[in-house]
Amino acid sequence: MGAEKVLRIGMIGSKFMGRAHSNAYVNGPRFFDLPMGVEMKQVAAQDEESLKKFAKQWGWESWTTKWRELVKNPEVDLVDVGTPNEMHRDQAIEAFENGKHVVCEKPLANTLPIAREMIKVAKKHKKQKAYVWFNYRRCPAVSLAYQMINSGRLGRILQVRCVYLQDWGGPETPLLWRFKKKHAGSGALGDLVAHSVDLARFLTGDDVKKVNGAVLHTVYKERMLLEGGGTGKSDVDDISLLLASFKSGMVASFEASRLARGYKNHNKIELHGEKGSLRFNLERMTELDFYDAELPAKEQGWSTINVSEAGAGHPYAENWWPAGHNLGYEHTFVNQFADMVNEMGGKKSLVPLPSFEDAYEVQRVLEAAVRSAKEGCDIPLSQVK
Amino acid sequence: MGAEKVLRIGMIGSKFMGRAHSNAYVNGPRFFDLPMGVEMKQVAAQDEESLKKFAKQWGWESWTTKWRELVKNPEVDLVDVGTPNEMHRDQAIEAFENGKHVVCEKPLANTLPIAREMIKVAKKHKKQKAYVWFNYRRCPAVSLAYQMINSGRLGRILQVRCVYLQDWGGPETPLLWRFKKKHAGSGALGDLVAHSVDLARFLTGDDVKKVNGAVLHTVYKERMLLEGGGTGKSDVDDISLLLASFKSGMVASFEASRLARGYKNHNKIELHGEKGSLRFNLERMTELDFYDAELPAKEQGWSTINVSEAGAGHPYAENWWPAGHNLGYEHTFVNQFADMVNEMGGKKSLVPLPSFEDAYEVQRVLEAAVRSAKEGCDIPLSQVK
Amino acid sequence: MGAEKVLRIGMIGSKFMGRAHSNAYVNGPRFFDLPMGVEMKQVAAQDEESLKKFAKQWGWESWTTKWRELVKNPEVDLVDVGTPNEMHRDQAIEAFENGKHVVCEKPLANTLPIAREMIKVAKKHKKQKAYVWFNYRRCPAVSLAYQMINSGRLGRILQVRCVYLQDWGGPETPLLWRFKKKHAGSGALGDLVAHSVDLARFLTGDDVKKVNGAVLHTVYKERMLLEGGGTGKSDVDDISLLLASFKSGMVASFEASRLARGYKNHNKIELHGEKGSLRFNLERMTELDFYDAELPAKEQGWSTINVSEAGAGHPYAENWWPAGHNLGYEHTFVNQFADMVNEMGGKKSLVPLPSFEDAYEVQRVLEAAVRSAKEGCDIPLSQVK
Amino acid sequence: MGAEKVLRIGMIGSKFMGRAHSNAYVNGPRFFDLPMGVEMKQVAAQDEESLKKFAKQWGWESWTTKWRELVKNPEVDLVDVGTPNEMHRDQAIEAFENGKHVVCEKPLANTLPIAREMIKVAKKHKKQKAYVWFNYRRCPAVSLAYQMINSGRLGRILQVRCVYLQDWGGPETPLLWRFKKKHAGSGALGDLVAHSVDLARFLTGDDVKKVNGAVLHTVYKERMLLEGGGTGKSDVDDISLLLASFKSGMVASFEASRLARGYKNHNKIELHGEKGSLRFNLERMTELDFYDAELPAKEQGWSTINVSEAGAGHPYAENWWPAGHNLGYEHTFVNQFADMVNEMGGKKSLVPLPSFEDAYEVQRVLEAAVRSAKEGCDIPLSQVK
Repeated sequence: MGAEKVLRIGMIGSKFMGRAHSNAYVNGPRFFDLPMGVEMKQVAAQDEESLKKFAKQWGWESWTTKWRELVKNPEVDLVDVGTPNEMHRDQAIEAFENGKHVVCEKPLANTLPIAREMIKVAKKHKKQKAYVWFNYRRCPAVSLAYQMINSGRLGRILQVRCVYLQDWGGPETPLLWRFKKKHAGSGALGDLVAHSVDLARFLTGDDVKKVNGAVLHTVYKERMLLEGGGTGKSDVDDISLLLASFKSGMVASFEASRLARGYKNHNKIELHGEKGSLRFNLERMTELDFYDAELPAKEQGWSTINVSEAGAGHPYAENWWPAGHNLGYEHTFVNQFADMVNEMGGKKSLVPLPSFEDAYEVQRVLEAAVRSAKEGCDIPLSQVK
Repeated sequence: MGAEKVLRIGMIGSKFMGRAHSNAYVNGPRFFDLPMGVEMKQVAAQDEESLKKFAKQWGWESWTTKWRELVKNPEVDLVDVGTPNEMHRDQAIEAFENGKHVVCEKPLANTLPIAREMIKVAKKHKKQKAYVWFNYRRCPAVSLAYQMINSGRLGRILQVRCVYLQDWGGPETPLLWRFKKKHAGSGALGDLVAHSVDLARFLTGDDVKKVNGAVLHTVYKERMLLEGGGTGKSDVDDISLLLASFKSGMVASFEASRLARGYKNHNKIELHGEKGSLRFNLERMTELDFYDAELPAKEQGWSTINVSEAGAGHPYAENWWPAGHNLGYEHTFVNQFADMVNEMGGKKSLVPLPSFEDAYEVQRVLEAAVRSAKEGCDIPLSQVK
Repeated sequence: MGAEKVLRIGMIGSKFMGRAHSNAYVNGPRFFDLPMGVEMKQVAAQDEESLKKFAKQWGWESWTTKWRELVKNPEVDLVDVGTPNEMHRDQAIEAFENGKHVVCEKPLANTLPIAREMIKVAKKHKKQKAYVWFNYRRCPAVSLAYQMINSGRLGRILQVRCVYLQDWGGPETPLLWRFKKKHAGSGALGDLVAHSVDLARFLTGDDVKKVNGAVLHTVYKERMLLEGGGTGKSDVDDISLLLASFKSGMVASFEASRLARGYKNHNKIELHGEKGSLRFNLERMTELDFYDAELPAKEQGWSTINVSEAGAGHPYAENWWPAGHNLGYEHTFVNQFADMVNEMGGKKSLVPLPSFEDAYEVQRVLEAAVRSAKEGCDIPLSQVK
Repeated sequence: MGAEKVLRIGMIGSKFMGRAHSNAYVNGPRFFDLPMGVEMKQVAAQDEESLKKFAKQWGWESWTTKWRELVKNPEVDLVDVGTPNEMHRDQAIEAFENGKHVVCEKPLANTLPIAREMIKVAKKHKKQKAYVWFNYRRCPAVSLAYQMINSGRLGRILQVRCVYLQDWGGPETPLLWRFKKKHAGSGALGDLVAHSVDLARFLTGDDVKKVNGAVLHTVYKERMLLEGGGTGKSDVDDISLLLASFKSGMVASFEASRLARGYKNHNKIELHGEKGSLRFNLERMTELDFYDAELPAKEQGWSTINVSEAGAGHPYAENWWPAGHNLGYEHTFVNQFADMVNEMGGKKSLVPLPSFEDAYEVQRVLEAAVRSAKEGCDIPLSQVK
């Protein structure tokens, strides 16, 4: 602290992500020695009443129901776009055009052309940062996996397996906006598979070359309306499956579901390399499982690393608690925010930050999956632009 | 025991499966009260020296290096075909034609036309039994899953996920017959995915309607020769991935690998139904994981049932040991053999026995996967005959 | 929020616990709608330089190097004693005498007579609250265990088993104050077993009647000095074992170690009742394991409840994130602080708050263990006062 | 095989242990190349009808209802005593006196003086072997632990923790002989803790020096009679707890229960050494958990070794199935029997075989526990003879 430089934040959105991001802004400077001070300048959302309460509770200096006011606010340096997907385009683009840094929730947009437009604008404003909240890169266990892979502990990676399972989307759940393509773009695909594809790309440094088949399955096509007692159509995927090949030759599978009874937030990735395997599951986010095929054969086993020990050099551990004192979900946002401020302040991010380009590459994969499912055939990524 | 009727067995093959099946014949009558006596009449294999030792060690009454002698032996009632895949056709067909019951190792054959021919012959000899060694149906935990699903505990099943992972096939492994299409038909697909497809069909009672994409990946195309120091070509899949839709609308994924470092025999199946989920993994074969979504929400959790308790009505438990005294791999063969003898002796099999038709249906799915991987498009099962 | 009433906090201590408590004061009002506002009025510690930085980083309005100033500060309502054990007595007693509420770190004191004196003073000031930071009661999974036990789900409890294992205390660790009886009172016993005894009492509502044997084992009696290169004597227990009987007849074992390689913060408690069992382990703090012996026998199993679902009525879940989005270590302090404010503001604490009396009862058990280990015989609690 | 030498076996007992041992005699020669042939000569038990059936089912050449006939049978070389505890003395001693080798079920006897008498006789007949069925030493994972400890992988061992939990002894269970001291000697102590103490001694090579406290708890003192509808007294421990110090300074805890809902056969041992920890649980008997504190800190974790791989040098693996194809409970008896035959045939046992002396040392510990529980004080082993 004691920094002269200050980063002044404006955030659009005050729901789930609004809370998660606000928490990062409140706690980032408390747990990290950042090269810049942090000021929570302004928050924007639609409903005045709840917004006022939200702003007070989280310590935002001011609030507005007009997001355009916020993106033009000369006292704001970084605009955080934490709204539903269909709003991202306008808010991010206008923020760039007003000279702001931007950090945007994933996915960038509901369609690929819109995402492309967004990165074009981002690229035009090279001096402004353009981040995306792929927060799971900064589960310490995931960051450790990144470091291990990059130091060659897996050797050549042959296969990746991702499942992201939740179970809140049964027939008892009404027709939320998340079940309408118009608002959400897609279902489990954009909501969950997006995270998995980002993790796979992040950890392997590799890009998808081809989608080798996909299934997008809407189990419940009719759902209760939120109000009024009737039913309406759901047109997004409850379950998504896709196979892919990467440029290196590595093959991969991705699965996501909102109907997997028993799984609450089971974001799991496994990587099989020539020298070993790694396994991570968000429901036990402190743990990284590692199989080291280079140990003496008699003692090889799946090892569970408790990734929380500063003295062992575990990522982010020195900023938090002693070994074995677990972190939770929202810490991933704090870690990402700290890395963003570090990078903006001229220091190095611990592991690479997710950029608009990353998010765009993820969306190309999802788009290829949509086409593959529809057309019943492989889709080379080169055809998806 | 004390039965007057006797089942006289002739077995072809004396390697891995020869041991596993012999063990079933030795121990079946010891742990089960069978309606027929069991006599281990004759065993056939190629190498006389090792065969003699094998026959003595396992208590076979006689041996021969000519399998045709065995299938014609009038003192044999049941012929067990436990040889490499390419031999199954001739041995099984001639056994049928000589009036024998047949139990054959999986897969039936290396190609679909041959498998079709085999079931045709099997059907012609209706009074003779035709079984296949899909032994994993009789892990007690799998049998319990079958019973639970059939009593409606999962409700409608929406999704199945199978992985079968091993790690013995790295570049250090020479060019065994299992790496040549000519001998083995395929790699991980026929060896491992076959088991998974059988389990999925067995547990759900459902059939594949379409393969929605597949990847068959040969990572190591050149392998050391077993002798002589050079290398030769491997032309089978080290890693197999496939997506499928079933007639009921259920969607499924199947994955198998011989290169998944850390997994020795990880035959795992998960099923997500509207009322709950089930999960089984052969590496912890005593355990069945169950999530009951009909319990009070506050107490719902993934439950691990130790499937070993006779008093609880667990399958096969009364034939073995007290609760918590685990069974092992080979017990699955003993259980299947006991059910076969029960059925042949007029009693009821505890859960359905795998038939030649079952094995043929499995092979149709694998064939569709091969085509899908090659052609880069979906393959409806109706096109695979 | 929007409360007119305000709770003004003064905290003594700025190390590990100082951070953990500050975090609770910062975030409590953000995640909970509390009946009183919270003001972080003043923090006291010895080292001015680091204190200044600490105060700024955490948002304390003022700081002082003289704790007596703080306990007399008329603008402070609640004094938080977060210093090493030997300081607790004076700070807590003077805080009471100055009319403050007090929340004290555990254990109350290094000796039982001092602890007794402290609760005497606490009792004299009945209108002032006297809490202790037994924070693990408010792991949501522990709170759920409390609710389940209290609603009869375990029936009569027959046995409790507690282990609290860490591994930071090997010979490579120098002679910290924690290794000197003079400063710390004891080793693993007061540091770790104290938590376990509190959990056992909290969950069962039962009191220890007798200690039936104890071992306090100092493995490394000589340790490197922190400075200067020589060595000095460690006179506290590295490993503590004790057996106990409770008033209800329930029997219990407690174990703690700082030398259990592989365990970072393995605070585990298991309870066996007539109707079922419960199991909790801090290293997987989101999970509560439950065995319900009243389910149909065929489906009984150890169930892992992911205690994070507001809709399921899980404790504290509605204040945090959606289901499956884990909490971490420090959330337990936030939860306790919120309950303290609720109680002080006239609302109800979700589960009982740990009082000075609770901490005193815990210390009686530890004292009995010390005597039992020394004298080599059982120690009835009635003899420990 | 092909051995000229033959070992001719006579077994007394035909219940649970009779089956387990018979299985070892049937299958030992099938899975191991033994230096002697094996003949199942004679079996003795009380009930003629069931004995006849048993003898036929397991392939015993003859049977008798008079065990004295068996121990004198000149065609028997090895007498297996598999009867209830109170019978062991007479049967073992007379077998020795008739020149037989003896293998006896554990515990040797119901009282220490009787056990002492038995080992005296055993010692007198030095040329005859005297083994005890502590079969769990030969779970491959336990044998691997033995090898690892002996090659120094744990360094100095500081602490051992054993629990052996079952749950069949609730109030619904009638007054079996196991609940009467007269027949069983003790309850969970002799039945379960005996195994744990043997494992602790076997793995560490260390001896108990002192019992530091014990609790023997009879929860249900009145149980339904097996017949007639009334109730009778149970006078053995349902739950046993004890603390102990070993000669090396190592400390230990032992717990056993028949009332631990959810645990079927949870025989667990953990060892903490200076260089690492090991953990074994019979309910997952293929797995050995190892924490290697000598790996680079960043990658240290609890590793689960799947102990089933011949190529990796895992104990007994080459005699059974390929890697990942699990063994079950009864294989431990087969492994012990094979080692016994190896030793009798002049070859080396893979790991040390349990002797009468071992069993006697175990009983001294249990006796010390009984006294400690009764007298409420420590009992040095030197006082127990």
